[in-house]
Amino acid sequence: MGNESRKVTFSVDRERNFSDWYNIVIRQAELIDDRFNIKGMVVYRPYAMKIVRVVYRFFEDRLERGGHQPTQFPVLIPEENLDKEAEHVRGFKPETFWVTMGGDEPLTSRYALRPTSETAFYYMYSQWIRSPTDLPLKLYQSVSVYRHETKATKPLIRGREFLWIEAHDVFATKEEAMKQVEEDENTMQEVIEGELAIPVLFLRRPQWDKFKGAVDTYAADVVMPDGATLQVASTHYLGTNFSEAFDIGYFDEEGRKNKVEQTCFGPGISRILAAIISIHGDNSGLILPFKVAPTHAVVIPIPGEGVHEYSVKIVQKLKDMGLGVEFDDRDETPGAKFYKWEFLGVPLRIEVGGREVSSSTVTVFDRATKRRTSIGLDELEKFIHGFSMLQHQELHERAEGLMNKFLDDAETLEKARSAISSGRRILRSHLCSMELDGEECARKIETELGLSVRGEELNAAPPKGKKCLVCGKDAKHQVYLAEAY
Amino acid sequence: MGNESRKVTFSVDRERNFSDWYNIVIRQAELIDDRFNIKGMVVYRPYAMKIVRVVYRFFEDRLERGGHQPTQFPVLIPEENLDKEAEHVRGFKPETFWVTMGGDEPLTSRYALRPTSETAFYYMYSQWIRSPTDLPLKLYQSVSVYRHETKATKPLIRGREFLWIEAHDVFATKEEAMKQVEEDENTMQEVIEGELAIPVLFLRRPQWDKFKGAVDTYAADVVMPDGATLQVASTHYLGTNFSEAFDIGYFDEEGRKNKVEQTCFGPGISRILAAIISIHGDNSGLILPFKVAPTHAVVIPIPGEGVHEYSVKIVQKLKDMGLGVEFDDRDETPGAKFYKWEFLGVPLRIEVGGREVSSSTVTVFDRATKRRTSIGLDELEKFIHGFSMLQHQELHERAEGLMNKFLDDAETLEKARSAISSGRRILRSHLCSMELDGEECARKIETELGLSVRGEELNAAPPKGKKCLVCGKDAKHQVYLAEAY
Repeated sequence: MGNESRKVTFSVDRERNFSDWYNIVIRQAELIDDRFNIKGMVVYRPYAMKIVRVVYRFFEDRLERGGHQPTQFPVLIPEENLDKEAEHVRGFKPETFWVTMGGDEPLTSRYALRPTSETAFYYMYSQWIRSPTDLPLKLYQSVSVYRHETKATKPLIRGREFLWIEAHDVFATKEEAMKQVEEDENTMQEVIEGELAIPVLFLRRPQWDKFKGAVDTYAADVVMPDGATLQVASTHYLGTNFSEAFDIGYFDEEGRKNKVEQTCFGPGISRILAAIISIHGDNSGLILPFKVAPTHAVVIPIPGEGVHEYSVKIVQKLKDMGLGVEFDDRDETPGAKFYKWEFLGVPLRIEVGGREVSSSTVTVFDRATKRRTSIGLDELEKFIHGFSMLQHQELHERAEGLMNKFLDDAETLEKARSAISSGRRILRSHLCSMELDGEECARKIETELGLSVRGEELNAAPPKGKKCLVCGKDAKHQVYLAEAY
Repeated sequence: MGNESRKVTFSVDRERNFSDWYNIVIRQAELIDDRFNIKGMVVYRPYAMKIVRVVYRFFEDRLERGGHQPTQFPVLIPEENLDKEAEHVRGFKPETFWVTMGGDEPLTSRYALRPTSETAFYYMYSQWIRSPTDLPLKLYQSVSVYRHETKATKPLIRGREFLWIEAHDVFATKEEAMKQVEEDENTMQEVIEGELAIPVLFLRRPQWDKFKGAVDTYAADVVMPDGATLQVASTHYLGTNFSEAFDIGYFDEEGRKNKVEQTCFGPGISRILAAIISIHGDNSGLILPFKVAPTHAVVIPIPGEGVHEYSVKIVQKLKDMGLGVEFDDRDETPGAKFYKWEFLGVPLRIEVGGREVSSSTVTVFDRATKRRTSIGLDELEKFIHGFSMLQHQELHERAEGLMNKFLDDAETLEKARSAISSGRRILRSHLCSMELDGEECARKIETELGLSVRGEELNAAPPKGKKCLVCGKDAKHQVYLAEAY
């Protein structure tokens, strides 16, 4: 947690000045340092890394329960691999970092610094897959990816290096592939919503906004405190696009080669960290979900007789429960200590003074609700066991409140304008088409409202008797319109 | 474990044809695939990744117990950072991959693809360290590093991308830094020897063979089945070389800036995997230490009445113990199954037939010793608890035997030649000097014997009355001579 003697000062309104709030919190809480001398590449400091690895573990456990196995592919990918799938290469080449030299010698052909790994995995998949018994093949890797981002960068949200996971799955049939998309949706919901208490909009993207090389893209969006949505994970149904380009297939009993069906899935761990910070925090700083907090509780002694001994006993009790505990007995005022640990988002503060010693109690402060409760020492363990669930509910409700604050229905451009002027940022409306023939209406929405079409909910029934908010033709989709990071 | 229908055939003598044995085992056990289309960059398949992550966890736990915290630095490093420490840059630039383009545009200055991260960490350390309370600073990252290797590559042993950990520590005094070197030595021994059952030679390298930029380099060498040594970890005392180059210092009470003392430590995870494979394996394939095996036991039913039900019960019992278990009820002969799982190095095979069912026993086969034991079902849990330790001892003894087989003392070049001709590969001898004035003798050893000076044991007392095996002058060091990977 860095230099204990530096004081934290902070007074920025998270919702009114979200960008300032965010920039101050990630730096002052020593999560991220963006002073490294490459634009868009940040240093993850210990406090962030400890959160990050819990998030990784959530996804990895969930992926492995679903039959995925870990792998690791090279960070460099030959240009010829990228060139194999025409749409994919058009999408990624403009933002690829290229390695062109080894030592003082130019390389005979250049290598891409992994912008995403389809063209690395599938080069090997074409060698690994021969028979139906090789399927399904479900592998994932936990690595970073690199994009030469030309837009303005923002730490964790838009960078040139970001932490993620990519899973690449191969099936014999489309039906199995589509089941995988549903499984990926469940994974996102179970982790992002179930573990991290962040409500998720799970949307199928319009054709003009899909992953380059995919048949369809499904993405998890979360709502940030400024009302913009942040895509934190996506899953792509690739059909046979890549299996044709890379000649991946299995031989059936008659010796015929059958193209395989593919999906890929990628939660963006850096962005999920940004979402945890932004969505759960408040005007006093971070609020970390109990499940990911590196420090679950800080014990703060208020000087008095027997306090030190009693505090040490409590610290040990908490450690014995397997919790991350800090004992803050620095020579500082309790107020300064309260301020610091609140800012760092430690879920529980345990205050111990003379009164607590004499009554065999502790005073527990809940960072999220800022409520103080007096608890008998012998009840502490039980209280903490229940706390994780209660805090989760509290944080989830707040995040849902945040999302709903920005959400509205708008059947026409005019109603949309009026909703926006009263502070709404995410509009549910209807669109003629999410195929390429709907792109013109989407452009108009962009120009007129400053919002983009984020897509429709998965398995949504087509709306009946609804009209496109732009062209007025029969609408095929209920869609979400939002400003996206 | 890949396609179940493919059969493994194998008959190569590990010690006589180590290189062939190694190449076959890593591929056929589906640990590594080196058919990726960049030379020296391999794919880690699930069986390898599961071992790798246990090894990572051993080091990370040990580092954190010693006060290190996790971090992650960018994969790219500006050339100007590398240029700051003159010796370091000379050492690493010739083998650095360079990123020179982003999209279609040349970058204004080129970036190194992390060959090692001193010049990334220390760029930030100069901003983070201000006062004595910022020290010690002990951070590590678990990442891959990249070298444009021009020598012949060998999977996991010499490649262009390898998995590792790097810890970068900063102290106020040399005394603390030297204590850290000892702590690093303990870490290597505790993990490599204590957890992985591989004996370690811990040596201070001669001045001509140290890490570029270090004052002194200390390394852990293990002995491979062909008698060559493999450096699997190293720790460097950097003195103030980098703190001067990067202006890292703390201000004392008088406002004077004091240069800090630094160390760095790097276990090579890829090489450690190579060592586990090579040193513990035998002519039937892999033998995995129980502590790192992804599958601890395979249960193989020998068809008979009640066998399936009984087997399922045993599988469940083992899973309840938290073990990795495979139940191999494929339609294959027991012999074929035995062969497969022995090749994959699964520590325990549990055979279940009619006799076992009727006597409420299991037949347990120990992959390392190839001994079969009949054990009462109610004794199985106890047996397995003891097995991990027994197997560790067995593997450690064997590895020690392997090392000792190659080890000999040789006071003169002539004796050294004779030892080599009788199969010795690692010679303990005496050298005039490990400073640069000893390099000429070392070159002669290289030419005459084909061995290099690996260095002297840490804290070794200077030898008394011994002469350099080359020049005959008084020897300052007892050194190890060996062929090194």
